[in-house]
Amino acid sequence: MKALVFDGALRFDPDYPPPVAPPGWAVLRVLRAGICGTDIEITRGYMNFRGVPGHEFVGVVTECDDTAWLEQRVVGEINAACGHCEWCRRDLGRHCPNRSTLGISGLDGCMAEYCVLPVVNLHRVPDTMPDDHAVLIELLAAACEILEQVTPPPGARCTVLGDGKLGILCAWVLSTACESVTLVGRHDDKLHLAAREGLSVTTDAASVPPADIVVEATGRAAGFEQAMRLCKPRGTLVLKSTIAESGAMNLAPLVIHEITLVGSRCGHFARALELYAAHHFPLDRLISGRFPLERGVEAFAAAQAGGLKILLDVA
Amino acid sequence: MKALVFDGALRFDPDYPPPVAPPGWAVLRVLRAGICGTDIEITRGYMNFRGVPGHEFVGVVTECDDTAWLEQRVVGEINAACGHCEWCRRDLGRHCPNRSTLGISGLDGCMAEYCVLPVVNLHRVPDTMPDDHAVLIELLAAACEILEQVTPPPGARCTVLGDGKLGILCAWVLSTACESVTLVGRHDDKLHLAAREGLSVTTDAASVPPADIVVEATGRAAGFEQAMRLCKPRGTLVLKSTIAESGAMNLAPLVIHEITLVGSRCGHFARALELYAAHHFPLDRLISGRFPLERGVEAFAAAQAGGLKILLDVA
Repeated sequence: MKALVFDGALRFDPDYPPPVAPPGWAVLRVLRAGICGTDIEITRGYMNFRGVPGHEFVGVVTECDDTAWLEQRVVGEINAACGHCEWCRRDLGRHCPNRSTLGISGLDGCMAEYCVLPVVNLHRVPDTMPDDHAVLIELLAAACEILEQVTPPPGARCTVLGDGKLGILCAWVLSTACESVTLVGRHDDKLHLAAREGLSVTTDAASVPPADIVVEATGRAAGFEQAMRLCKPRGTLVLKSTIAESGAMNLAPLVIHEITLVGSRCGHFARALELYAAHHFPLDRLISGRFPLERGVEAFAAAQAGGLKILLDVA
Repeated sequence: MKALVFDGALRFDPDYPPPVAPPGWAVLRVLRAGICGTDIEITRGYMNFRGVPGHEFVGVVTECDDTAWLEQRVVGEINAACGHCEWCRRDLGRHCPNRSTLGISGLDGCMAEYCVLPVVNLHRVPDTMPDDHAVLIELLAAACEILEQVTPPPGARCTVLGDGKLGILCAWVLSTACESVTLVGRHDDKLHLAAREGLSVTTDAASVPPADIVVEATGRAAGFEQAMRLCKPRGTLVLKSTIAESGAMNLAPLVIHEITLVGSRCGHFARALELYAAHHFPLDRLISGRFPLERGVEAFAAAQAGGLKILLDVA
């Protein structure tokens, strides 16, 4: 099958062996995939991953023991968990120590004609949802994770730092649950397309009053220090992006102001699909380019150049 | 009056002007004071403080509008709050933006014959509590703050990193609420005196299994990284010490494992006094030296040399 492959360098392979589904798993024909910051990190050596990258996709089930799934258009949770450890019993399979993760760890990803996932990971996509939106459900679920971990108090003031895809989605999600949400970014164009009813946007962090909940989604150490400054004493700071740089950081403000910092990663797709249905997030605003799978290397270069989401048209 | 004074250098002043109590405040004759890490930081420039340092004390009320307090032996909460802001209304005067703090910010401290505090800050000391124990109530309250912020789940496994005074007190306090508590330190002598029923001690962090709650009380960036490693996914990491060094830190494990980090500072004295009464903490084990106030400069040098709590005998 056609696939993008990372084996020290990223390359297009027209003849990569197709995956085989173990019992309880399904084979999916990939329609569209998205390039995420994690994918770019993988091409720089993150997780020592070798194989097909990619974990954001929409696809169609082509093989499955349960025939009810056949030909269904689906999205899929990316962590394949063991199903019987402490974490799995707590419905936290995304922390299962025995898990493999689509295109990130121990499991070929979705930047190929076919990929495989456990059937329990699959979610049907509503007919009314375009492929371009479905491929963003994984990222929307990551934003929704915040509301699973943090309950905004009544009248809560929230600030999101970072006008990338994830920052914008976090701001949209929080604006469904909080009275006042401000998105702070550095790019007028991105802030313009993030603007939505119930959401303020600004490039001027100094003008933003201290918030009860601050989401750090810049991925930069400087963004983290700013997030501490913009958080009220006893407030909550949600750390949404892995800050790649091991920067010099002083955590003393967390102690002095007794701030609670919540690390936040993947979320449940079901919650994301519900929230999407209820709030009609204009997800296509987040797409800034698309390439056929064959031009995947070029697509990765475009994704690194800035802008928002780059898609790969696979089928 | 006799006082230790920091005005760029620490010195003993035999003739410092005694403090005057505003309405609603009391004058206290200090019996004994403790030297804390924060006091040492102040002599290095922390908070730009000038005046009498010191915030750990036991004293006797000598002047007060409410005569019921006169001649009472007391300890005192160190933050003098405005009493009417958002924080004060939430019983969080220790985060009041208008506060002064005894011996730390805007208010002369207790390393002198007399100091002043608002009457609402005072707590009577039980007759059965020795002065040496009473002077440690402020530090015990800081340890108790953990239980105000975090509710250990049933069967919780807790690990405390750091065998200094605060780490030992945190371990003692947690052992009143958790089934399994391990104190990890680097000093056999300190661990030996920390050992208590219901508390394991070790110098071998590698042998400690991942915990639901980890308390970082080493004050070192390396301790923080170790704390992240020793915390279960979705666990809680309590950051108890302000890490003075702005070290290179990688917070990615907090996101990947969705760890909640709780900054934790001062606590309520009432809780500390209750817990002390119920659990008979052997606080005198934490005292490693004492000096008269006149030899305060020498006492600070001893406190910086290691060991545990150094006391100043004032009266």
